[in-house]
Amino acid sequence: MMKTRGCCASICQCFFEYSTPKILVIRSFKVGTLNRITQALVIAYVIGYVCVLNKGYQDMDAVLSSVTTKVKGIALTNTSDLGLRIWDVADYVIPPQEENSFFVLTNLLITLNQTQSHCPEVPKTGFDCTSDRDCKAGSRDTRGNGVQTGKCVKYSAVDKTCEVLAWCPLELDKEPPNPPMLADAENFTVLIKNSIRYPKFNFNKRNILPYVNKTYLEQCVFNRITDPDCPIFRLKDMVTEANEDFQTMAVHGGVMGVQIRWECDLDMPSSWCVPRYTFRRLDNKDPVNNVAPGYNFRFAKYYKNGNNEETRTLIKGFGIRFDVMVFGQVSFHRNNLSHF
Amino acid sequence: MMKTRGCCASICQCFFEYSTPKILVIRSFKVGTLNRITQALVIAYVIGYVCVLNKGYQDMDAVLSSVTTKVKGIALTNTSDLGLRIWDVADYVIPPQEENSFFVLTNLLITLNQTQSHCPEVPKTGFDCTSDRDCKAGSRDTRGNGVQTGKCVKYSAVDKTCEVLAWCPLELDKEPPNPPMLADAENFTVLIKNSIRYPKFNFNKRNILPYVNKTYLEQCVFNRITDPDCPIFRLKDMVTEANEDFQTMAVHGGVMGVQIRWECDLDMPSSWCVPRYTFRRLDNKDPVNNVAPGYNFRFAKYYKNGNNEETRTLIKGFGIRFDVMVFGQVSFHRNNLSHF
Amino acid sequence: MMKTRGCCASICQCFFEYSTPKILVIRSFKVGTLNRITQALVIAYVIGYVCVLNKGYQDMDAVLSSVTTKVKGIALTNTSDLGLRIWDVADYVIPPQEENSFFVLTNLLITLNQTQSHCPEVPKTGFDCTSDRDCKAGSRDTRGNGVQTGKCVKYSAVDKTCEVLAWCPLELDKEPPNPPMLADAENFTVLIKNSIRYPKFNFNKRNILPYVNKTYLEQCVFNRITDPDCPIFRLKDMVTEANEDFQTMAVHGGVMGVQIRWECDLDMPSSWCVPRYTFRRLDNKDPVNNVAPGYNFRFAKYYKNGNNEETRTLIKGFGIRFDVMVFGQVSFHRNNLSHF
Repeated sequence: MMKTRGCCASICQCFFEYSTPKILVIRSFKVGTLNRITQALVIAYVIGYVCVLNKGYQDMDAVLSSVTTKVKGIALTNTSDLGLRIWDVADYVIPPQEENSFFVLTNLLITLNQTQSHCPEVPKTGFDCTSDRDCKAGSRDTRGNGVQTGKCVKYSAVDKTCEVLAWCPLELDKEPPNPPMLADAENFTVLIKNSIRYPKFNFNKRNILPYVNKTYLEQCVFNRITDPDCPIFRLKDMVTEANEDFQTMAVHGGVMGVQIRWECDLDMPSSWCVPRYTFRRLDNKDPVNNVAPGYNFRFAKYYKNGNNEETRTLIKGFGIRFDVMVFGQVSFHRNNLSHF
Repeated sequence: MMKTRGCCASICQCFFEYSTPKILVIRSFKVGTLNRITQALVIAYVIGYVCVLNKGYQDMDAVLSSVTTKVKGIALTNTSDLGLRIWDVADYVIPPQEENSFFVLTNLLITLNQTQSHCPEVPKTGFDCTSDRDCKAGSRDTRGNGVQTGKCVKYSAVDKTCEVLAWCPLELDKEPPNPPMLADAENFTVLIKNSIRYPKFNFNKRNILPYVNKTYLEQCVFNRITDPDCPIFRLKDMVTEANEDFQTMAVHGGVMGVQIRWECDLDMPSSWCVPRYTFRRLDNKDPVNNVAPGYNFRFAKYYKNGNNEETRTLIKGFGIRFDVMVFGQVSFHRNNLSHF
Repeated sequence: MMKTRGCCASICQCFFEYSTPKILVIRSFKVGTLNRITQALVIAYVIGYVCVLNKGYQDMDAVLSSVTTKVKGIALTNTSDLGLRIWDVADYVIPPQEENSFFVLTNLLITLNQTQSHCPEVPKTGFDCTSDRDCKAGSRDTRGNGVQTGKCVKYSAVDKTCEVLAWCPLELDKEPPNPPMLADAENFTVLIKNSIRYPKFNFNKRNILPYVNKTYLEQCVFNRITDPDCPIFRLKDMVTEANEDFQTMAVHGGVMGVQIRWECDLDMPSSWCVPRYTFRRLDNKDPVNNVAPGYNFRFAKYYKNGNNEETRTLIKGFGIRFDVMVFGQVSFHRNNLSHF
């Protein structure tokens, strides 16, 4: 009982204690002056150098980067629809130019000679019918391909489906070809041109290094061991470096990341400042959670036939989008102090 | 008088004072060794762990994100120019694929059958004329549609304007239709696929969550209350969440921001790491400062007629651009120390 | 000898010393209470204000920006291939819309009426031949334009080259015209609309300032001295501000950066918060290291002729891509504390 009270009292006492270091005050003109001058210097440094001199450049620190790309290569396809057909860069890069990104078509489902007309819907739950009463004129289902006319028509010898106003004939909902149509795409090459600029340091650099000449650039292909500075990449090599199989990825499409990393110490010779390239697959490839895999989109080429009637070729294009990402870190000792 | 002098002297004395804590020095082998070991440990930790181990990963901290989108839906228009016409995704998404962004056409002004030929300019100050002397051959005004031929011709029964070489007939400068042509666009849906990756933590995640299967994905629509994890969004819902009216916005077009926010604590179960979606209108909608509202651009479809002559259909397209922005913050206690 | 030992001993002694300030403990209820209350206030401030109130907004600090652009202007070309021809915005902006970027065609090499057929390769090392034995059927060289048929055919009166299946006639590999075809592009103007938004501060602003009305916007052109707030830029002025010559840059193309910088102090009147524009050339222009200069890409317009056969016009387009970059820094004293 006594002990508890003693402990309590002790804690209480502790709680209301106030501790402060014992201070020794030296009243000397010499020592005092020295003290104040030191303090003044520190303040002058903080205000003058850190705040005033460096503040103006703070947001200029960002790297300015420009990326342009140019794909080269030829693919040959042979289908019953199109016959023997050559695909070149104007055919398979869609859209023809983008900022920091390019898309290469590797596989496709094509629907030729579509016109605005009437045709039976694709057989699917909700579109099957036995008589006109099953179809509702004007109805437009988000899963459908057109606006229903209210008629029930023959789709095949067996099936009857609701008629729609649409781009007919409709695209058949089927799996993309495997192997992919443009299997040749693995041998396409891409020249990636990247220029970086640090306005703060007035520092410019491009990934076509100074010693690279036109002859070398016409025939080199990037290889981590033998040609690490060549800015021309074979599509298959990029995908392989990301531990993926090109032909598998080409069937359903996907997204690849091309990372260009600049780490330059401006106190070192400029020739030490070279870009490093890494490649990763960015979209999901989890074999367990593979709902909605790959990357595809639909686009069309529009024509007018002899009767001035519009027709189009619809293409469901599967392919690989390459997103180029530039990371930069420039260090420079003279200005390092500003980070403290 | 005495007092002031006393105060002054006191301040002076204070200024030249130098204060330092009284130090107690313990000269003991035991205490001293303990002290130095503690200091050595702190230094070893700072140099070894914070500087060496974590430095290499500093710029790898960035999130790598890939976004792909797929719009679905059918719109029906009925105009005197085009008759009854169906619009599907290949018609209204322009360009067919972009990185982190997609554009949906909601309204349009169409000019059919343009050819390179001569026609009178649209009546506007600067293009009106009474005789050929008012028109200057070769003149190209930035506000005009072509190069003047120097002739003054009849535009209508009343007006005469300078003749130009241009894509004729010229587009009429008029307000976009209200209600918008593709009013049906409010029911379009878009599947947004987003994969994120933190290379530092070797952490991957996509916004199609593990429990989502193909059946659910085929019929779900995002709803903040009932379906917060469905990655399929109705365009109207997105605009409504940003406190805007879809049909009003569709007339002149605009820009919407779709923010996907990942805040994941890797010490917690992976299933707690889910994306949150927010929607905002990004372009101006200030009713007071509404000069140059909305978003529109011109594009054309090119044809060749029987005489191998090029004709085109010019479309002034109004619509909504959706910019998808991904923000990520991953925390992980084991590495949190490195931020100190 | 004695001295060294004395010094050694002194260092040793120093090493094992432990210094600590002398502490004065005041055991007073009044002083102690005051001390604890002060501490409690500091802790409450740190936890309550800094951690709880401001934490939720940390990553919301980012500026949300939307950029849309609209180019205007007419160019006239006169070539033997195309005759007199007008180019307007739908012809020279490719693709018609992009996020934060636009491309203006300034020069081009055109190849008309290409069809899928057979023709001799362009004479180049590797494609020359004297007989069919020099050509390998099925061979597709990345530097070539098609797939070899195995025949050796006449290219000209002098040269024989291997025949290929390709889009024929092939594009001739020649330098772009100088002066550039669309020299008129220097007078094109572009309206850049930029809206920024800081969700944290609920702060919106656009670069069309409140006092700008429709009449002013229809006829103003940006000028750093006389019209610094006009958001309409003449292409030539932008290039000139970056110390480049437009006509020279237009021949091979290039990449320009348009920087919009917002530096707003929200404690000051809103009218002080105006954007500043700067222009830089982003791609390389080093006259020494000028391998692969400029910016160009290939695209095609597809037609069908009377026999339902596909033909295309291939264009190798050179031009200037303008990348719009928005930087923002908003300061606001009331919240500055949160950064400590």
